[in-house]
Amino acid sequence: MDDTAGLAIALEEAQAGYNEGGIPIGAALVSKDGKLLGRGHNMRVQLGSPIHHGETSALYNSGRLPAKAYEGSTMYTTPSPCDMCTGACLLYGISRAVIGENKTFLSGEAYLKSRGVQVRVVDDPRCKALMDRFIEEKPELW
Amino acid sequence: MDDTAGLAIALEEAQAGYNEGGIPIGAALVSKDGKLLGRGHNMRVQLGSPIHHGETSALYNSGRLPAKAYEGSTMYTTPSPCDMCTGACLLYGISRAVIGENKTFLSGEAYLKSRGVQVRVVDDPRCKALMDRFIEEKPELW
Repeated sequence: MDDTAGLAIALEEAQAGYNEGGIPIGAALVSKDGKLLGRGHNMRVQLGSPIHHGETSALYNSGRLPAKAYEGSTMYTTPSPCDMCTGACLLYGISRAVIGENKTFLSGEAYLKSRGVQVRVVDDPRCKALMDRFIEEKPELW
Repeated sequence: MDDTAGLAIALEEAQAGYNEGGIPIGAALVSKDGKLLGRGHNMRVQLGSPIHHGETSALYNSGRLPAKAYEGSTMYTTPSPCDMCTGACLLYGISRAVIGENKTFLSGEAYLKSRGVQVRVVDDPRCKALMDRFIEEKPELW
């Protein structure tokens, strides 16, 4: 799949998180040859978990994979990754990060680049609008 | 509790992981005033999870906490933290990392320091011996 399709899955996940009353951040991990390895969304509210962010949930749902499965892979994520998810991408040697928007939150992009990860910011208004709506409705969760 | 007691909990967790047939890495998160917030061990084998490392499991088992609960806290961990766990400590604003040993694995210590986290490496022979035993017995898992 291409970046548009990958980001669309991440956005579907973000919407699913919103619909569950959670933090609407979604992610999808796609292999070098364009296959979906895993998808997921932030589960902080749903699981009471501080470690199930969008990207880490996508990694969790991908299961245990051999190191080479991550080579050349792309992590699609609706906002810019936090420090933990930045580190998770680095740990597994994910090659690219495609980010829906970085206006709501900006943390690890420069560090990703400094460690050799390709970063593309799409600036997708749907990703921004979903976060804006959530922050307005539930400021206590953000 | 002091560093000796905190690291002892992390080592108990690492031993529990070994006993379960998993990767023997343990961690404990202790608040500024010396209370245990959470403890955990690597669950890669047990859960088939790429995100449940020692430190992230300790965070998971601590549950959702307000940001101030992490202020002044210390993460005890048997080997040096990986990139993901380094990022998790940074995300939550953990103040100190006390590391059992960094001979088996060394990744994020310099980055932790550069971001203002105090790092203490204890060089505990029990932590190193447990990892050595595991790597000798199950090299395919390491």
